[in-house]
Amino acid sequence: MLPNGKHLRSTLTGALTLSLALLSASTLAADKVYRLKLAETWGPNTPILGDATKNMAQLAEEMSNGRLKIRVDSANKHKAPLGIFDMVKSGQYDLGHSSSYYWKGKVPNTLYFSSMPFGMMATEQYAWFYRGGGMELMEKVYGPHNLLSFPGGNSDIQMGGWFKKEINSLDDLKGLKIRIPGFAGEVMARVGAKPTNIAPGELYTSLERGTIDALEWVGPAFDLRMGFQKIAPYYYTAWHEPGSETQFLVNKKTWEKLPSDLQSILETAFRVTAFDMYTQSIDANANSWKTMSSDYPDIKVRDFPPEVLDAMKAATSQLLKEEADKDPLAKEIIASQKQYLSKVRAWTDISSKAYLDAN
Amino acid sequence: MLPNGKHLRSTLTGALTLSLALLSASTLAADKVYRLKLAETWGPNTPILGDATKNMAQLAEEMSNGRLKIRVDSANKHKAPLGIFDMVKSGQYDLGHSSSYYWKGKVPNTLYFSSMPFGMMATEQYAWFYRGGGMELMEKVYGPHNLLSFPGGNSDIQMGGWFKKEINSLDDLKGLKIRIPGFAGEVMARVGAKPTNIAPGELYTSLERGTIDALEWVGPAFDLRMGFQKIAPYYYTAWHEPGSETQFLVNKKTWEKLPSDLQSILETAFRVTAFDMYTQSIDANANSWKTMSSDYPDIKVRDFPPEVLDAMKAATSQLLKEEADKDPLAKEIIASQKQYLSKVRAWTDISSKAYLDAN
Repeated sequence: MLPNGKHLRSTLTGALTLSLALLSASTLAADKVYRLKLAETWGPNTPILGDATKNMAQLAEEMSNGRLKIRVDSANKHKAPLGIFDMVKSGQYDLGHSSSYYWKGKVPNTLYFSSMPFGMMATEQYAWFYRGGGMELMEKVYGPHNLLSFPGGNSDIQMGGWFKKEINSLDDLKGLKIRIPGFAGEVMARVGAKPTNIAPGELYTSLERGTIDALEWVGPAFDLRMGFQKIAPYYYTAWHEPGSETQFLVNKKTWEKLPSDLQSILETAFRVTAFDMYTQSIDANANSWKTMSSDYPDIKVRDFPPEVLDAMKAATSQLLKEEADKDPLAKEIIASQKQYLSKVRAWTDISSKAYLDAN
Repeated sequence: MLPNGKHLRSTLTGALTLSLALLSASTLAADKVYRLKLAETWGPNTPILGDATKNMAQLAEEMSNGRLKIRVDSANKHKAPLGIFDMVKSGQYDLGHSSSYYWKGKVPNTLYFSSMPFGMMATEQYAWFYRGGGMELMEKVYGPHNLLSFPGGNSDIQMGGWFKKEINSLDDLKGLKIRIPGFAGEVMARVGAKPTNIAPGELYTSLERGTIDALEWVGPAFDLRMGFQKIAPYYYTAWHEPGSETQFLVNKKTWEKLPSDLQSILETAFRVTAFDMYTQSIDANANSWKTMSSDYPDIKVRDFPPEVLDAMKAATSQLLKEEADKDPLAKEIIASQKQYLSKVRAWTDISSKAYLDAN
C-alpha cells in the first residue's frame, strides 16, 4: 500500500526535517482525506444489499489510496430506514443507499427509477439508464432536491409471490388479501384484490393464520430463509418488479467539494458496485432456488393466466396514464421508458428469448 | 483537476524553494506517472470494441489523477491483430484487448473464456466469472504465460447468422458452405456442413456470388452495415455464442510494478468497462435491429428446427468430451461451466424466461 495523506505527511517531515507549517494546504491538496458518512435503509449485515455498501466503501478507499473514507451506518444506528432521502438532502449524511420508489409519497416522480410492472428487465434498464436517457431524467427529478442519484445495484427479477391457492382466473383474485406495497399494490387493487402492508417480522404468521392469502417478497435469495414455501406452495412468476434497482444518493454540496479524481473514483465505485450486486443477486438466486426446489419439492411454480396478466397490464397502463396527465415530467419519463422498452424488447425477443426457448 | 505527479513536483519546488534532489524517489512515489501501452485486436475507431479501450484508458487516467497514462495502439499500428497474446506475454505491450478464444491454437484451454455453443448468456457468465469460480480457472490458464486476463466487455448474444435458404431439416445443412470459424465451425462440420473462413472484406461478395451459402457475423449492431440482409433473408437465432466476452490482458511484471491503488484502479476500470460495453451492445443491437427490421421488412427471423438444434447440441457435447479426455484442466473447466449453467439456467427459466414468455 502507498501511504495515505496522513502517513505521507509524517514521512515527509521525518525524511526532510521539513516543517509542515511551510507546506501550504494547496500543495498537499492531493493528500487530503475526505471522511464521508453513508446511511443505508437496510439493517446491519443484510445480505446482498448490505454487501453493496461495504464493497463500495472498500473499493473507494482502495482506489483513492485512503483519501476517501466512507463510514456506513445501518438502520439500527440512524433509526430512519425510510429517512435516507431527507438525511442526505439536508447534509446530515453525505451519501445514502436505498431505493428510489420509497420516495413516491414525497416526490412522486422518484417512482420510475427502481422497477415498473411489466417494465424493463435489469439489463434493458441499465441500457436505458446509461444509453437511453434514464440518467438525465433521474437528474431532473433529484437535482432540485440537492441530490444526485446513481443506480445502486439490482436485485434481479422479483417473483410474483407466494399464494396459498392457485390463481386460475380473475375471479380468484377478487377479495384476495395480499401483502404487496406501493404501485404494484395499486395495480392489484384495480383488479379486485385487497392489498395490504405488514411488517416483515409478522409476515409468516399472518400468512399461516390466514390474515393474508398471499404475499410478494423478493426472490429465492431472500425468500428461502423466510420459509413461506412451507405454508403457501404456489410460487408465481414475475410481473411487478422485473429488475429492481437500488440507488446511491449523494448530497450535491458534498459532491462539489470533492476533487475531480475522487468524483470519478466515487462514481465508478457506485457503477461497478451496482453491476456486481446484480451479478451477486443472480448467483444467490440460482443457489437458493437450487436448495429450495430440492428441499421443498412440492413448490408449484406458476405463471398467472393470460386473463389475469391482461387485466394487470391494463390497470398498469391506466394508472400510468393518470400519473402522466397530472405532471409533465411524469409524462416525459413514462414516454421515455415505454419507447425504450418497445425498442429493446424487440431485440431481447429475437436474442435472449429465442435462445432460452430453444434450450 | 488536481495536479498530476509532474505538476506537483514543480509546485513544490517553486513554493518551497526546495531542491528536488532532496526529495527521494520514495517520498514522491505516490505521484509517479506510469505510462502503459495497450495493443488491441481491432482496427482504429472500431465501434463498441474500440470504444471499450478508449473508455477504459480515460477512466483509469481520471481516477488516478493522471498517474496512469495508457496509449492504445490499434491493429493498423502494431500490425498483429492476432499477436496480442504474444506481445503482452513478452512485455512488448503492457496491456491487450482481444478475445480469449483467439488463442485456442496456442493454448487450447483459452477457448472457454469467451462464449461456448449452448452455453451461458452474458449475465449468467458474469455470475460464473465473479461468483462461480470462473476467474480462478482463467488464472490457472493464463498465469503460466506471465499473463493476467480479465473480462473485457460483452458483445451480447450473437445471432446464428444469415442464410440464403431456409433450414428445415438436418439434410438442409449437409454440404452447406458456411463462414463460421473456430469451435462453432467444428460443431457445424460434425453435423455435415462445410465451414470455411473468409476475410471480412470479401464476405459480402462471397455470399452474393454463392461461394458460400451462409455466414455468421455478430448481431444487428455489427451486421447492419455489412448489408447481408440484402442477399440472404433468413436471419437465424442464437446457438453458438450466447454471450461473447472480450478480454483485457496484462503483463504480470507490469502489474507487479504498479502500486496497489493503481492496481485497484486498473482492475476496476476493466470491470466497469466490461459491464458498460455489454450495456452499449444491448443498446446498439436494439437500435440497429429497429432500423434493420423497418428498412428491410423482408428479413425472416428463424429458429433452427429442433432436429438441427439437437444434432448441434450432441456434436458440442461430443467435442467437449474429447477435449476433457485430453487434458485435466480442460476437464475441470468444462465441468465447472456445465454445473454452473445447470444451476443458473434453472433460475433464469423461472425468472427471465417466464417473464418474457408472459409479455
